[in-house]
Amino acid sequence: MLRLFGIPESEIAETLRIAEEEVEGFDELEITTCLRRGEVEVVVRHEPGAPAAWERVRRLIGERHERTLFSSDGASVDEQVGELLKGHTIALAESCTAGLMAARLAERPGSSSYLLGGAVTYANEAKVAQLGVDPALIERHGAVSPEVAAAMADGALERFGASVALAITGIAGPGGGTEDKPVGTVCWCARRSDGAELARQVHLPGDRAEIRDRSTTVGMHLLRRLMLGEEFPL
Amino acid sequence: MLRLFGIPESEIAETLRIAEEEVEGFDELEITTCLRRGEVEVVVRHEPGAPAAWERVRRLIGERHERTLFSSDGASVDEQVGELLKGHTIALAESCTAGLMAARLAERPGSSSYLLGGAVTYANEAKVAQLGVDPALIERHGAVSPEVAAAMADGALERFGASVALAITGIAGPGGGTEDKPVGTVCWCARRSDGAELARQVHLPGDRAEIRDRSTTVGMHLLRRLMLGEEFPL
Repeated sequence: MLRLFGIPESEIAETLRIAEEEVEGFDELEITTCLRRGEVEVVVRHEPGAPAAWERVRRLIGERHERTLFSSDGASVDEQVGELLKGHTIALAESCTAGLMAARLAERPGSSSYLLGGAVTYANEAKVAQLGVDPALIERHGAVSPEVAAAMADGALERFGASVALAITGIAGPGGGTEDKPVGTVCWCARRSDGAELARQVHLPGDRAEIRDRSTTVGMHLLRRLMLGEEFPL
Repeated sequence: MLRLFGIPESEIAETLRIAEEEVEGFDELEITTCLRRGEVEVVVRHEPGAPAAWERVRRLIGERHERTLFSSDGASVDEQVGELLKGHTIALAESCTAGLMAARLAERPGSSSYLLGGAVTYANEAKVAQLGVDPALIERHGAVSPEVAAAMADGALERFGASVALAITGIAGPGGGTEDKPVGTVCWCARRSDGAELARQVHLPGDRAEIRDRSTTVGMHLLRRLMLGEEFPL
């Protein structure tokens, strides 16, 4: 199984069409693609005699989607992040996800070796009191802004004494959207105490539950890239 | 649909056996019971002519299970708590659930009117730094204890300036259990700023995910009873 993130299913379909033309023995492979929680999974079933064809398809996917292919051995991004965080400590700063990101990191047994905790700061006053966010920053840029996400991440690093922090602030809806920042607007900031940073602002599709869940998936991928030192955007 | 909490399915089965003997027209009712996330749901389907029999069964269940029947109109405990919290403000203090309780409260659109946020304090140092828990209390009673749960609730009330707080600390496993406090041991403390309190320590069955999920269900019911002023234990 291959897993990709940050790519439309149509691009994988295009790659598979090319593979169909170029790769001998492609017909002996049974390949299915599946969109799951914002990731594309490519699963292959093949006869014992067809691994060479699969190897060529796999290489083609790797070449064409180098930046979005994140797993070739079945490992989930949650497992990868769990491994990458070993030896580090992490704290979360969450608004729209309201604890889902911390809870997702805590799903893995043994996560207590790196997960210190997090601040769920749903109200603006909580962002100020729990994370030291400057109220003027919220006033100027809005609670859902790259600036406030960065300040939340800094607050989590400092207040928890963590070496890694991830902040998420967004508008999960159904209310709260504006013309500038419609429902689905989410800002992430992942920072390390050594200064490394990855930040992003995205407009996510879906309803309230989907936006909140997808926000944690993007958060996982930001953490993965931050810990790997990959600096290109998602 | 009736919903009950804190009752084994077998007790409802016993009540239905009694109803079968006592209630005329019982045979025309199609009653099913279902255990879902720690709650028992009793669903009835009946012919248009049989509402009188259902009314009698419903009354029998209400009489025999007065303390555990919490919903007769299909409303979930989440919906009830959301209604009860209107006009109040709530903050969470979570250890083993690591944000699941805050996230569950935030599932409801409009929850931002009462949900201020919460502290996810997975590490003991986070309990001290984020919630002001006395390290000596953790040393003396352990992080999973009624004493520490109460201190976490007080910290959430104070740090967030909330009128209601709920603290959850437990051992979700698979590691971390002891003879005294096996995996599944969880302590809750729900407190209001006016001094009202409901606390509980329970040994929950199930695996890590089930213990964490069930912990939020118990938390919801504690909040419901605290806000209703019902002081008998769950």
